[in-house]
Amino acid sequence: MSTLETLKAELDGLQIEDNPQIVKQKSRDFFWYSPVLKHQLENVSAELVVTPKTEDEIVQVLKACYAHDVAVTTRGAGTGNYGQAMPLAGGVILNLAEMNKVKEIRPGVVVAEAGAIISTIDDECRAHSGQELRLHPSTYRTATIGGFIAGGSGGVGSINWGGLRDAGNVIRLRVLTMEAEPRVLEMKGEDLQKVMHAYGTNGVITEVEMPLTASYDWVDVLVGFDAFMDSVHFADALGNQDGLLLKEIAPIAAPVPHDYFLRHQKFIRKDQSVVVCMVAPFAMDAFAAFVGRNSEASILYRSDTADEGVKKGLPPAYELAWNHTTLRGLRVDPNVTYLQVLYPYPNQVEKVRTMVELLGDEVPAHLEYVRFDGKVTCFGLPIVRYSSEDRLNEIIKLHEDNGCPIFNPHRYTLEEGGMKQTDAVQLAFKKEADPKGLLNPGKMIAWEDPSYDYSSEKLFLFPGLQTG
Amino acid sequence: MSTLETLKAELDGLQIEDNPQIVKQKSRDFFWYSPVLKHQLENVSAELVVTPKTEDEIVQVLKACYAHDVAVTTRGAGTGNYGQAMPLAGGVILNLAEMNKVKEIRPGVVVAEAGAIISTIDDECRAHSGQELRLHPSTYRTATIGGFIAGGSGGVGSINWGGLRDAGNVIRLRVLTMEAEPRVLEMKGEDLQKVMHAYGTNGVITEVEMPLTASYDWVDVLVGFDAFMDSVHFADALGNQDGLLLKEIAPIAAPVPHDYFLRHQKFIRKDQSVVVCMVAPFAMDAFAAFVGRNSEASILYRSDTADEGVKKGLPPAYELAWNHTTLRGLRVDPNVTYLQVLYPYPNQVEKVRTMVELLGDEVPAHLEYVRFDGKVTCFGLPIVRYSSEDRLNEIIKLHEDNGCPIFNPHRYTLEEGGMKQTDAVQLAFKKEADPKGLLNPGKMIAWEDPSYDYSSEKLFLFPGLQTG
Ligand SMILES: Cc1cc2nc3c(=O)[nH]c(=O)nc-3n(C[C@H](O)[C@H](O)[C@H](O)COP(=O)(O)OP(=O)(O)OC[C@H]3O[C@@H](n4cnc5c(N)ncnc54)[C@H](O)[C@@H]3O)c2cc1C
Ligand SMILES: Cc1cc2nc3c(=O)[nH]c(=O)nc-3n(C[C@H](O)[C@H](O)[C@H](O)COP(=O)(O)OP(=O)(O)OC[C@H]3O[C@@H](n4cnc5c(N)ncnc54)[C@H](O)[C@@H]3O)c2cc1C
Repeated sequence: MSTLETLKAELDGLQIEDNPQIVKQKSRDFFWYSPVLKHQLENVSAELVVTPKTEDEIVQVLKACYAHDVAVTTRGAGTGNYGQAMPLAGGVILNLAEMNKVKEIRPGVVVAEAGAIISTIDDECRAHSGQELRLHPSTYRTATIGGFIAGGSGGVGSINWGGLRDAGNVIRLRVLTMEAEPRVLEMKGEDLQKVMHAYGTNGVITEVEMPLTASYDWVDVLVGFDAFMDSVHFADALGNQDGLLLKEIAPIAAPVPHDYFLRHQKFIRKDQSVVVCMVAPFAMDAFAAFVGRNSEASILYRSDTADEGVKKGLPPAYELAWNHTTLRGLRVDPNVTYLQVLYPYPNQVEKVRTMVELLGDEVPAHLEYVRFDGKVTCFGLPIVRYSSEDRLNEIIKLHEDNGCPIFNPHRYTLEEGGMKQTDAVQLAFKKEADPKGLLNPGKMIAWEDPSYDYSSEKLFLFPGLQTG
Repeated sequence: MSTLETLKAELDGLQIEDNPQIVKQKSRDFFWYSPVLKHQLENVSAELVVTPKTEDEIVQVLKACYAHDVAVTTRGAGTGNYGQAMPLAGGVILNLAEMNKVKEIRPGVVVAEAGAIISTIDDECRAHSGQELRLHPSTYRTATIGGFIAGGSGGVGSINWGGLRDAGNVIRLRVLTMEAEPRVLEMKGEDLQKVMHAYGTNGVITEVEMPLTASYDWVDVLVGFDAFMDSVHFADALGNQDGLLLKEIAPIAAPVPHDYFLRHQKFIRKDQSVVVCMVAPFAMDAFAAFVGRNSEASILYRSDTADEGVKKGLPPAYELAWNHTTLRGLRVDPNVTYLQVLYPYPNQVEKVRTMVELLGDEVPAHLEYVRFDGKVTCFGLPIVRYSSEDRLNEIIKLHEDNGCPIFNPHRYTLEEGGMKQTDAVQLAFKKEADPKGLLNPGKMIAWEDPSYDYSSEKLFLFPGLQTG
């Protein structure tokens, strides 16, 4: 009997899928965002998809795979866009789609299974007690909370709370190790960083405890500008308004808003740059006064006064922002891709100007205002009109040469993506939690290559764990 | 019949007090915080206290006083500490203590009468839907919301939301003018600044609409340090932790915590400096991890694990902070007073060090971390061991010479206090709203002195209204 057949027999009773078409589909994520990864990962597939319904069933899968040396790649909703969830060594996809229950809601806290869809968690928290999660990716309506923690970084709400990397944005994770007898780890405080943004390489998150904040009927607003740099100054000042509650501030350069936001196109001229905002309803008077003080700004659309019929036909503002901007671009022009940039405080505005002047319409700007180390600054997710990998690398180098670190979304390893720094502590934890290296193999260079030198001067979003 | 007798007759049916003892008591606030004001204002008194129960009754009072040219000074709870509420020209005290109803609570918003006590508003909002006000002075349990808006600036919560001056921290004010026929103004957006922090010189606020945020059972924590500057570095880093939800961060230099916080004395060594914190309960793990990373810091007290009996005997942490630090000092040593300082970002820590080195134990430091123009920095409310007015002025000058603006709490006028800048727009509004200058006379220099030059290079907390 082949290993696969043995495994299937041992997992009898669990929900298993081995139809190659479906398995391949469940082995893919949004890696095709990147023309580079598209090429590299096109043929990646697992052999089996197992969809457990309980933590016990996950333990069963891990034990069996450990015994037979089969790779296990955990999957949330597969919306990651660096190939995070793609099983380079084949084996089993551990699909958490059915581990999706919200288990407990109390003031400021929700406990949920890792496979719960983010918007479902919010729906339940809102109905329960007017609460919602602090942060969500723009894949709010499709992504899982476990996938966000293991593969994401931040998003809508980061203007108030920073990113997932910031202490306090995750309270507790329940994690299973990949051993002969999988252990349950309850991780809190300092320990959390060991499993966060690790692409599931050192444990399977089964349950999460997340902080909540007050929930509101956020008002979607598009503010238009004739000149992109005016929109940046506006967004920068807006982000520094301490009493104005917004959940999202994203300046996007013309012609992206008009050309790619097809259902909003009627509100936007081709030469207009736009700041996409989500504003607390009770802040709208103060927000309007703020816009009024800025002669370059005009409100193109606001959902609180829009006709119900008009509103129904539009996607929510957050689905114009973060990685959805790129997605909308890709739908109109399959040749675009994007980058991830940090414009470090306090020179963010000047650095944006420099890059815009250098790259023009080859790299139309898209900024996301966030709190970063206590300051308001911006990330960039600029659209790139892709010509070749060489040119893409030149564009990356131009950013770095101008003091704008790149988190490269055209790499599938943790380290090269630039978000996760590995070090001896991280590696020691991996050795404990996944001694055979069966969890999502190929994603952590420090593990694959014992001679890897992880002493790096590079900026990592999730820094290494070594202290002192 | 004297004017007073006529007035009393015209206001028959309203709650009126003319017992000179009681009237004098209701004519005073916490002006005696300042040895300078104590001397200047000691004999100030109104002639009559009227305590209206409805807006109609207020209109009646204003009409009668307008007709007879009688000054009207509005009073909340009289906890202002620059003599804001003291009737320099005598006349009537309009006591809003009975205008104290909470009228409406919805997501993110409360509507209340101006005389409502701040903690009462929170109690009702918490019970209604787990909400609370964003900001409150440390006089939470005594001060009125109207008095806070007309005479205060910020406080607990300012680390998250900035101050009252920031757009969005007040939604709407309902204001009565002082005219033959008092008008009702509903002020929002840009207009709000006309009546905010104006000591009631240009209208009587009868109703307020304020933003709410999520309410939690805040954990009181005292963190101890051997060296004050270590406590400042700790607080500065803590305030910049985007994911750690705190409502209060106040470093206070030894020996103030031990000497003046009598009921907490058992937790604090005389040579220990303390950071007073209020932490969201669900942030305590992350907070403890943050403290753990700092070898100089140790948790002296935390209310979430304290014995119920011990806890009951202690005042809440916010009553150790803001102006309560000074109050506790004054109770132990009647010769102390205080100052109000801004340590401007980004040099706050260095400026604090400079002032501490210059002034030593004559001016023990007390900092309050806040958001200010989008950055985390600190105000100071240092204790001053008072010797003479000249020395106090020297100390003020030393701060200013070192780039630390002073908001002088030893002055009773708006302008000299440094919090409110008057200008032509402000003055024009006063002319409309109070043409006879009967509202709280003597507090606005621009009004009293037509030759006053309000073009000033000084920093004002509430800037002028002239744009462009
Ligand atoms: C249109 C679009 C918009 C996006 N916007 C954002 C954004 O705003 N912010 C952002 O951060 N990201 C964004 N992303 C990336 C991605 O959507 C998010 O990271 C998302 O939260 C991933 O969730 P998922 O459930 O799809 O995870 P998956 O893609 O299924 O998994 C992500 C990674 O986590 C691992 N993993 C999943 N579940 C677990 C678990 N329970 N235990 C251990 N490991 C696990 C997987 O193996 C994989 O490595 C976007 C992507 C797209 C395509
Ligand atoms: C121990 C102590 C701690 C303090 N802590 C803080 C603090 O943390 N933050 C802070 O900002 N302040 C603080 N203060 C100052 C003061 O307590 C606050 O400003 C407080 O909010 C004032 O409220 P009140 O109801 O007592 O107002 P009052 O003292 O009665 O009035 C203040 C001013 O507002 C005017 N006024 C009152 N009500 C109205 C109205 N309805 N319409 C128009 N004008 C009106 C009065 O005429 C007066 O000029 C403190 C004072 C003390 C003594």
